[in-house]
Amino acid sequence: MDFTIRPSKPEDCKDITRLIMELAEYEKMPDQVKISHEELKRDGFCQNPFYQCLIAEVPERHKTKDGHVKVGFALFFYTYSTWKGRCVYLEDLYVMPELRGKGIGKALMSSVAKVGKEQHCARMQLAVLDWNTPSMDFYMAKGAQDLTQSEGWHFLRFDGAALDKLAEEAPKN
Amino acid sequence: MDFTIRPSKPEDCKDITRLIMELAEYEKMPDQVKISHEELKRDGFCQNPFYQCLIAEVPERHKTKDGHVKVGFALFFYTYSTWKGRCVYLEDLYVMPELRGKGIGKALMSSVAKVGKEQHCARMQLAVLDWNTPSMDFYMAKGAQDLTQSEGWHFLRFDGAALDKLAEEAPKN
Repeated sequence: MDFTIRPSKPEDCKDITRLIMELAEYEKMPDQVKISHEELKRDGFCQNPFYQCLIAEVPERHKTKDGHVKVGFALFFYTYSTWKGRCVYLEDLYVMPELRGKGIGKALMSSVAKVGKEQHCARMQLAVLDWNTPSMDFYMAKGAQDLTQSEGWHFLRFDGAALDKLAEEAPKN
Repeated sequence: MDFTIRPSKPEDCKDITRLIMELAEYEKMPDQVKISHEELKRDGFCQNPFYQCLIAEVPERHKTKDGHVKVGFALFFYTYSTWKGRCVYLEDLYVMPELRGKGIGKALMSSVAKVGKEQHCARMQLAVLDWNTPSMDFYMAKGAQDLTQSEGWHFLRFDGAALDKLAEEAPKN
């Protein structure tokens, strides 16, 4: 099947927001999405962008039943290891259900890996929910290592009042 | 005790490399460190820096037995949530053993939270090894949530041959 993978442009942000919302609905947490296409545009297209995004697009003749041609995305950014240097982090990878099984997800992921390698990244990392067996199997089959299982890494988060309190306690110098 | 928290400068990179190596030795994995102070300088002080770093410095009169005044660091970068927008990620937090218990680690962490809040980040995230009880307790006592435990998030990594293979399989368009 024909499809194209290309870097996102500011005018894609409405479609990216739509796809983000679809993914959250699949994960049964649509009320968690607080982002708007204006924020996505501001944060992805400023001087030091907070993220980069690739769009999967199909030709008009393959458009979805709702008339969409932008059918998937991969959102990523650079992180840094004090042991290995530059890394790339795949935050979101999504393909609309009716377009799955055609290699689009794999092509998006490979394209992020390629961009990472071009930027001399030593690693590509991501996070998966342990109950999300299809995604876990997909990544493991492509050679991913599960560092939580093998080394015991846990994800910690500060947000809301805990983050506010920490920031307030910072020294004033 | 007197100490100062300040953003790192290019001339701090040798000391940061020394502190990174000390931390890796504590973790019994010094042979994993492949980074040089030249790379740290290149990646932290370019037009779109891959990381930012805060340095904890003590006055001369409090220097360590080996004569060091740069006694700790916090290395961080920005990440992005497609639900919440901008986030800050604390990659490394380290204070030399002889200077611990004086609030330097807490001050470094709070300062990263403050920088993150100033940049409108909704979250500060980090990863901890589950056997590293002192660190885990430290973060949990300050209000962190363990998302691996509560939601089941696992860390996945592609590197070496698996990453090379992925990148090679990217579509050529």
